[in-house]
Amino acid sequence: MSSDHAASGSGPRYGFLGPAGTFTEAALLQWLGDRPAEVVPYTTVDTAVDAVRGGEVIAAMVPLENSVEGSVTATIDALAGGPGLAIIAEAQVPVSFSLVARPGSTLEQVRGVTTHPHAHAQCRRWLAERLPDVPVTFAPSTAMAASMVAEGGHDAAISAPLAAAVYGLDQLASDIGDRPAETRFVLISTPQAPQPATGADKTSLVLFMGQDHPGALLEILTEFAVRGVNLTRIESRPTGGGIGDYFFSVDVEGHLDDARVGEALMGLRRVCAEVRYVGSYQRLDGQQPVIRRGVTDEEFREAQAWLARIREGRS
Amino acid sequence: MSSDHAASGSGPRYGFLGPAGTFTEAALLQWLGDRPAEVVPYTTVDTAVDAVRGGEVIAAMVPLENSVEGSVTATIDALAGGPGLAIIAEAQVPVSFSLVARPGSTLEQVRGVTTHPHAHAQCRRWLAERLPDVPVTFAPSTAMAASMVAEGGHDAAISAPLAAAVYGLDQLASDIGDRPAETRFVLISTPQAPQPATGADKTSLVLFMGQDHPGALLEILTEFAVRGVNLTRIESRPTGGGIGDYFFSVDVEGHLDDARVGEALMGLRRVCAEVRYVGSYQRLDGQQPVIRRGVTDEEFREAQAWLARIREGRS
Amino acid sequence: MSSDHAASGSGPRYGFLGPAGTFTEAALLQWLGDRPAEVVPYTTVDTAVDAVRGGEVIAAMVPLENSVEGSVTATIDALAGGPGLAIIAEAQVPVSFSLVARPGSTLEQVRGVTTHPHAHAQCRRWLAERLPDVPVTFAPSTAMAASMVAEGGHDAAISAPLAAAVYGLDQLASDIGDRPAETRFVLISTPQAPQPATGADKTSLVLFMGQDHPGALLEILTEFAVRGVNLTRIESRPTGGGIGDYFFSVDVEGHLDDARVGEALMGLRRVCAEVRYVGSYQRLDGQQPVIRRGVTDEEFREAQAWLARIREGRS
Amino acid sequence: MSSDHAASGSGPRYGFLGPAGTFTEAALLQWLGDRPAEVVPYTTVDTAVDAVRGGEVIAAMVPLENSVEGSVTATIDALAGGPGLAIIAEAQVPVSFSLVARPGSTLEQVRGVTTHPHAHAQCRRWLAERLPDVPVTFAPSTAMAASMVAEGGHDAAISAPLAAAVYGLDQLASDIGDRPAETRFVLISTPQAPQPATGADKTSLVLFMGQDHPGALLEILTEFAVRGVNLTRIESRPTGGGIGDYFFSVDVEGHLDDARVGEALMGLRRVCAEVRYVGSYQRLDGQQPVIRRGVTDEEFREAQAWLARIREGRS
Repeated sequence: MSSDHAASGSGPRYGFLGPAGTFTEAALLQWLGDRPAEVVPYTTVDTAVDAVRGGEVIAAMVPLENSVEGSVTATIDALAGGPGLAIIAEAQVPVSFSLVARPGSTLEQVRGVTTHPHAHAQCRRWLAERLPDVPVTFAPSTAMAASMVAEGGHDAAISAPLAAAVYGLDQLASDIGDRPAETRFVLISTPQAPQPATGADKTSLVLFMGQDHPGALLEILTEFAVRGVNLTRIESRPTGGGIGDYFFSVDVEGHLDDARVGEALMGLRRVCAEVRYVGSYQRLDGQQPVIRRGVTDEEFREAQAWLARIREGRS
Repeated sequence: MSSDHAASGSGPRYGFLGPAGTFTEAALLQWLGDRPAEVVPYTTVDTAVDAVRGGEVIAAMVPLENSVEGSVTATIDALAGGPGLAIIAEAQVPVSFSLVARPGSTLEQVRGVTTHPHAHAQCRRWLAERLPDVPVTFAPSTAMAASMVAEGGHDAAISAPLAAAVYGLDQLASDIGDRPAETRFVLISTPQAPQPATGADKTSLVLFMGQDHPGALLEILTEFAVRGVNLTRIESRPTGGGIGDYFFSVDVEGHLDDARVGEALMGLRRVCAEVRYVGSYQRLDGQQPVIRRGVTDEEFREAQAWLARIREGRS
Repeated sequence: MSSDHAASGSGPRYGFLGPAGTFTEAALLQWLGDRPAEVVPYTTVDTAVDAVRGGEVIAAMVPLENSVEGSVTATIDALAGGPGLAIIAEAQVPVSFSLVARPGSTLEQVRGVTTHPHAHAQCRRWLAERLPDVPVTFAPSTAMAASMVAEGGHDAAISAPLAAAVYGLDQLASDIGDRPAETRFVLISTPQAPQPATGADKTSLVLFMGQDHPGALLEILTEFAVRGVNLTRIESRPTGGGIGDYFFSVDVEGHLDDARVGEALMGLRRVCAEVRYVGSYQRLDGQQPVIRRGVTDEEFREAQAWLARIREGRS
Repeated sequence: MSSDHAASGSGPRYGFLGPAGTFTEAALLQWLGDRPAEVVPYTTVDTAVDAVRGGEVIAAMVPLENSVEGSVTATIDALAGGPGLAIIAEAQVPVSFSLVARPGSTLEQVRGVTTHPHAHAQCRRWLAERLPDVPVTFAPSTAMAASMVAEGGHDAAISAPLAAAVYGLDQLASDIGDRPAETRFVLISTPQAPQPATGADKTSLVLFMGQDHPGALLEILTEFAVRGVNLTRIESRPTGGGIGDYFFSVDVEGHLDDARVGEALMGLRRVCAEVRYVGSYQRLDGQQPVIRRGVTDEEFREAQAWLARIREGRS
């Protein structure tokens, strides 16, 4: 979908799930901060990921949890299939909806609204109170809804606040969602050595089971639990290889270089049909894991030295 | 979104994630078979579910796994939040894509294609080979894409075969997806006693954890495993109550009336913050579970009789 | 071995591992307190147990843990094999050794000591310091050693303090063990309904595995753990049916009438080749179990009521 | 108890639980085969173990399971306490009882029998049938009973067949036990590097728990289970440090040099208060463990190489 690309800025190129003005772009811009960069929108998660794999961009921001735009399962499936990828950062932006319209418009003039169905679902209470009789038309994304308004297609759109700036629109109302929400995004690159450990990291994995095997998940979780590695997210997904054939997409606390994470991964490598390491990266919330007795790096080292001693008869 | 409803047929009313011509409608029609029914499309999973809760329809078909239309997480979240719901059946249709166009069109005449981004992603190889230079525009669903073609908006749409019939279009090409896929749908009603056990059943549950509690998932899986209850699907989802607060959406083999499922549910009830039972229903694949030694209904009965005997001193 | 019996007192007859003056007798007398009773010594655990089974005595006190007299494994095997038995109480006495001699003797006059080998092993330090050159001869029990001294066979015996009184001897030294120790005894009867629950109880079980089955023990412990039932003792013992065929003798916290214990027992009944319930009885230390969230009787009742409701469609 | 020692043969000195003629001596002689050796009886397990620690003998044979002589718990406690020890071999002899008497005696002349209480318990049926009215007196061991007969103290003894040869007695009847039995013995030395792996090995461990900790045993077993290490024996024993403070004496399949055993031991080292390795040695039954998928040395190596690769960014 190269025709959809709109480059902005200069510096290394980063992709995101577009069009311009999505929450995903907001997440990317937040992560970039002052870094010089050119940002490139992609129409779907798959095209963004392809751009990473093809070297068009050095990384791409896509949604991973609780998305109101695009499909989270597209991200999960992209990480699980095809050539390897690595998550190098996570990002989170408040999903705050605004009603945006062409400059000079007022709320009273709005006779038609467009937005993505998920955004609509999350603003129903506000719409029922403030625009009860106004028909709603759906667009493929909130950003596309805003762009359609900019082009004169509807009176107003529900979108991210960023979309107002991107498309030269006014915000007639802001924060119109029924309840606060957050979406989690990840910045994806080609495989690389893990980011340096910070003490507050996550590691993402894709675990493929062998033959249909009822106790498989319990077995997997026990591999983590025995090494004191906590999960923060898990999803089972069909492999596409037929019903009943599943993989698990999981995030765990800790870094690939942590001894407990390393031993758990080796255990999984031995019992799973395939283990795909998809990156260790700093947690956005900076929350350091509570590491239980027995699984610190120091305790792993000490136990290894002890084993070496008794194997040599020096207990 | 009552303005979107299009009723068809007569008999009890059933909703589905529309518009007309979606795979979801195909799944509903397949499930209905000869049952007299009126089917009603809804624009989003949320509006379909609201129609069930409000009594507008007696049940609604929505996607639960691997969807190419609508959001599966919308279904999972709808089952987890708000007033209770029950899954009363599952359905599965092959996700087969066709290129549909107005009658009399030929492939050579196609100079623009519209479809849902997921469908586009799944037909990329075919498009690259057969329509390499034709621009693709996105629509909110494959059915909406077909309807736009019917109204003259684009030359062709990628959609379910059903959409051709619904919108009076021709199929210029069929089965154009890059690989076979299936989507799983569920028929949702208001809470009710479980469907009668058939010997090949599934039970769906939503499990809310208490405070952030690292070993929670292992604990839950052990409650199932000890009673020989196998999981067929699991997903963790944020509750919306803040980061780190999760629930699990799970499907297990077996029926609420099975002794092993009952005991597992009581165990979960005691350790989870909340357990929501969302229905026991026949498995579409008719696959009977392999029940391990020790967890048949007969063995549960025998053990209960034995416990009663020893409690009375008659060992 | 009926010829060994020596009756004392009047009232119901109780057996114990004799001869008169053992720590086991001390444990029985402590348990009896003011109860009228006739106590009868038996030469071995097996003969004591046979006397219970044959109705010669209504119960018998035998050692179960850390014994310095008789064999603990004899007790464990007796509970596991033959007609059923029930533990109705536990008892514990400090294992305090005295050097006993005929009245009027002094330590200086002692030129030969007799005792049971275990008692000898526990008093070695004292003997090395105070009677370094005095030869030690072994007797089948500390009480028999004392009786041999009373009959003039040796100058002194190491025995329980009680043996001095029983055999009319003086204590030349008391508390001569190298370190403090305790032995646990159990009072065994024919099978009967459990003792009333006191809130601080133990339950004893014998668990037979099926075919040699490596994960069996983990499976068993998980049955307990899922219901929050803690073990206080476990031993694997060969069944005598050939190498590799084991049973487990276990004590757990809680009472047969506790819901969590009952459900754990039913689970074990279903997975073990055989479960033998051997009694619920008050803990001597009065220590109430810490019952984790989710396994109180009240929580079991509530979960059962909830299950009944959802099975009837009243969630 | 050096006064009890009786040396025989020449070569390195080996101790055993005596006196001469015990099943333990039979086990030692069987293990020695043609090795030149001097064998030395010790009165108790503790004195035999002290002789090992003090360098009086290079190793000592003592009972570990299902003993009819001496105390198995003495062996278990000796391995758990005091300076370290190592099991370097296991041995097993059929526990076959004979009625032994001075040369020229006949069964009809027997008017008194002596033996150890356990041996008596195991020959009761035979005694009831063949010597119903003959009184039985107890001796500290079956071998001591035979020696008392040799010295003219009783008419006959029940003992191991070996004792007849040792004390110059005749066997009036052999194999008089009520049912076949086996006892397991272990040869104990000072700590040393493990015996070379044979592919059919056992490893013995002593595991000390920390504070009273209900789930400790489950935790320990999970450390083994996750690495596919099977237990063949387990016993909980009080540490002597007060009620409720336990250690576990366990035997597992496999050798200290096996990767799966090594990783399990490191895991235990990290979660237990103390882990005492007590030796890896060939299984007497030559039974090779069934090693489940994922825990062979080769799989451990491969997983380690894989981890190294992904840590360097070469997945």
